Amino acid sequence: MRRMTARPANAHQARLLRLLRDAGPSSRAQLGDQIELSRSKLAVEIDRLLQTGLVVGDGFAASRGGRRSHNVRLAPELRFLGVDIGATSLDVAVTGPELEILGHLTERMDVREGPVAVFEQVLSMAEKLRNAGLAEHFDGAGIGVPGPVRFPDGVPVAPPIMPGWDGFPVREVLSQELGCPIMVDNDVNLMALGERHAGVAHSVQDFICVKIGTGIGCGVVADGKVHRGATGSAGDIGHIQVEADGRQCPCGNRGCLEAYFGGAALARDAEQAARDGRSVELASRLEAAGALTASDVAGAAAAGDVASLDLIRQGGARTGQVIAALVSFFNPALVVIGGGVTGLGHTLLASIRTQVYRQSLPLATGNLPIVLGELGPVAGVTGAARLISDHLFSYTPT
Amino acid sequence: MRRMTARPANAHQARLLRLLRDAGPSSRAQLGDQIELSRSKLAVEIDRLLQTGLVVGDGFAASRGGRRSHNVRLAPELRFLGVDIGATSLDVAVTGPELEILGHLTERMDVREGPVAVFEQVLSMAEKLRNAGLAEHFDGAGIGVPGPVRFPDGVPVAPPIMPGWDGFPVREVLSQELGCPIMVDNDVNLMALGERHAGVAHSVQDFICVKIGTGIGCGVVADGKVHRGATGSAGDIGHIQVEADGRQCPCGNRGCLEAYFGGAALARDAEQAARDGRSVELASRLEAAGALTASDVAGAAAAGDVASLDLIRQGGARTGQVIAALVSFFNPALVVIGGGVTGLGHTLLASIRTQVYRQSLPLATGNLPIVLGELGPVAGVTGAARLISDHLFSYTPT
Repeated sequence: MRRMTARPANAHQARLLRLLRDAGPSSRAQLGDQIELSRSKLAVEIDRLLQTGLVVGDGFAASRGGRRSHNVRLAPELRFLGVDIGATSLDVAVTGPELEILGHLTERMDVREGPVAVFEQVLSMAEKLRNAGLAEHFDGAGIGVPGPVRFPDGVPVAPPIMPGWDGFPVREVLSQELGCPIMVDNDVNLMALGERHAGVAHSVQDFICVKIGTGIGCGVVADGKVHRGATGSAGDIGHIQVEADGRQCPCGNRGCLEAYFGGAALARDAEQAARDGRSVELASRLEAAGALTASDVAGAAAAGDVASLDLIRQGGARTGQVIAALVSFFNPALVVIGGGVTGLGHTLLASIRTQVYRQSLPLATGNLPIVLGELGPVAGVTGAARLISDHLFSYTPT
Repeated sequence: MRRMTARPANAHQARLLRLLRDAGPSSRAQLGDQIELSRSKLAVEIDRLLQTGLVVGDGFAASRGGRRSHNVRLAPELRFLGVDIGATSLDVAVTGPELEILGHLTERMDVREGPVAVFEQVLSMAEKLRNAGLAEHFDGAGIGVPGPVRFPDGVPVAPPIMPGWDGFPVREVLSQELGCPIMVDNDVNLMALGERHAGVAHSVQDFICVKIGTGIGCGVVADGKVHRGATGSAGDIGHIQVEADGRQCPCGNRGCLEAYFGGAALARDAEQAARDGRSVELASRLEAAGALTASDVAGAAAAGDVASLDLIRQGGARTGQVIAALVSFFNPALVVIGGGVTGLGHTLLASIRTQVYRQSLPLATGNLPIVLGELGPVAGVTGAARLISDHLFSYTPT
C-alpha cells in the first residue's frame, strides 16, 4: 500500500502545486498569470511535475484567442488524512488533492486515555475510510492535538488536559504507522487554518479564531501565517485572568476564563442551576441523563429557559472581555468564534460582540466582523489537510 | 542641498545594502557567505552598487588563504534622520550609514499644539544638526508619532491624545519640507525596531516592547516584523480594562490600564498622595514645583518614600496583569519595558515580573526574560532610522 509521494524540486514547482490545490484545474496560461516565470521556463517546470505524477493533464482549456492551452491539475489520486483530536471526540477525514472532503468520521474518545489508545482509534478510523474505497494510500496526514505542540518536531509539550502526552513523539510514531509524512499542530491552529482555507476567514491575512470547546483556545494568524509563539503556546487564552481572586481553576490559579466558561464550566454551572431549583428544564434533563453538557444548555435556552440563557450571556461576556483585550493588542481584521459551544449560537455571539464593541477602541472595532466559523466539525480536519499539503508542497533548499 | 539617493535595482542589491548596514565594512568573501549568488553574479551586483555611489571600496580585507578580497562599505556620507515625537518631548537624531548616532537633540514639546507647530520645531532641530556639520543632506527620515498610523501612506488616524493630527499627511508634507523620502510609524513600533536593531532585543524574532510614557502602548514583533494590525492600531494596550466598573478614563470607558498607570496617572496619584498627607516627600516636591511628574515619584521612591514605592508597585501590578494576558496570547520570547517611566527602575520591573510569572502559564513564562530596554531615549530615533533605511534598502518589482 505504501509508496513515496514525489516532492517539488524547486520553489517554482512548490508554488505551482499550491496554486493547483487552491484553484483546481488550470490552464498553463492561467498559471502563467500567477507566477513570475517566462513561458518557456513555466513549460519546463510543468513538464517536470507531469513526469513526477503529482500533476496530470486535464484536456484543453477554453481558448483565450490564441492557441488553445492545455489544462493541468493535481493527480486525482492524491489523498490527505486530516485528524482532529479533541478532549472528548475524534474527527478523522480523508481529502482529495484540492482538500475536498471525501469522507469524515466522528467518534467519542477521551484524550486522557493517552496517546497509545487514541492512536489505535485513529488508525482504525483511517482504516475504515480506506476500506470504504476512499483512499488506497495516504500521501500525508495532519494531526491536531488539544494542547501546545513543539512544532518543528511535532511533539506535544506539557498539555494541561492530556496526561501521558507530554513529549510523546506523535510525528515520529504516526509516520511509521501510517507510512506517510506527518505534521502535528495545536487543534485551534488547525481550526484557524481550516477557516482560512475554505471558510469564513478565506484569504484574510490577520485574524484570530477563538475555539470554545471543553476549554477555550485561540488560533492567531498574522500576515497570513499561523503565529505559534516562542514555545508553541500562543493562543493559550483559557487561563487569562478575568476576575482577581476569582473562582478556583484546575490549573491552580484563580479567576481564569476557563473557570467561568467553556464546555466544562458550563456543564458544572448548569448542574448547579438544576440542583438549586433555578431551572425546571435543566433539572428534568439532569434527572433523565444523570449529567449535563453544553448541548443541554443550548437545548434548554432554545426552549426559552431563563437560567440557561443567563449562563450563556454571562459566559459570552467573560469571553468578550478577554477578546476585547486581544483586539486592542492585535488589531485583527476578523474574529472567528468556533468549537462545540457554538451550538449556543447567536445568544453567545451577541454577548461577545456587546463586550468587544464596548471595551475596545473604536479604531480597532470600527470595521471588525465577529462571526461564527463556517466549517463546524470539519474545520479542524480541513486545517489538518491544509497543514500537511503546505508541508508537502513546499521546497527548502538543502 | 537636495540630491536623489540611488535605490537598489533588484532584490540582491537590497539584501547587500542591508547586510552592509548591519555588519559594517565587509569583504566580498564575507558577503558571498551570506547571500545565495554565484561569485561572478555577486561581483556584478557589487560593481553596480559601487557605480551608484551607495557603496564604496574600503581597502583590502585580511587574507583568508587565497587571493586577498576587497572590502566594501556603505557610502560614509549617507545620512538618516530619526524623529521621535512623544506627547511632551521631541527627539531628533542624525545617523550615519550603519545607523550609528552622530548627533541627538531632545526638546520639550506639546503634541497637542498640532502638526504645523511640531514640524516647525522638527525642521529647526534638523537644521541645528545640519549646521553642526553632522549632515549636508538627509537621504531619508523616519518619523514616530504617539498614536496609530495608517502605515502605507503615513497618516495618523484618530490619535486620542493628538487633536489636529487626524488625517494630517505627515509623509507627504515632511518629504516636501525635508526633500527626502519619509516613512511614518507609531512611536512604540519604532522603539521596538530600535531595541531590535541595536538594543536588548537584538535579532529576537518574537517579542513585545511595552512603552510606559505619558500613556502606555506596545510594539509587537512577530516573525521578525512589526505587526501593525488591520488598521494600524495593534499594540494599543493602554485602554485594556483592568478593573470592571473601575476608574473613569479620559477615553470614555471605565477601568482602563491608563486610568491606573502611565506618566499621567502617576502624576495625578502622586499629587493626591501629597495633598492627603500620605507623603511628606511628595508634598514638599509639590510645594516647590507646583506640580508633580513621574520623575518626582522616582526621586521620592529612591529616597525611600513609602507612598511613592506603593504607587510604583501598584502600577507595576496593573501593567503586569495586562502583560500576563498578552504573554498567554502571544507567547513572546522576550518582554521589553521602555519609556520615560522606566526611571522607576527595578521596583517597577519586579512588580511586573511577579504578576506575569504568577498569572501566565508556565510553558509561556518558563524561559521568558522581562527586561528594561537598553537604548533609553535613543530607542525611538534608532528605530526611525532603521525604518527609513529598511524602506530605502528594499526592492519591490513594478
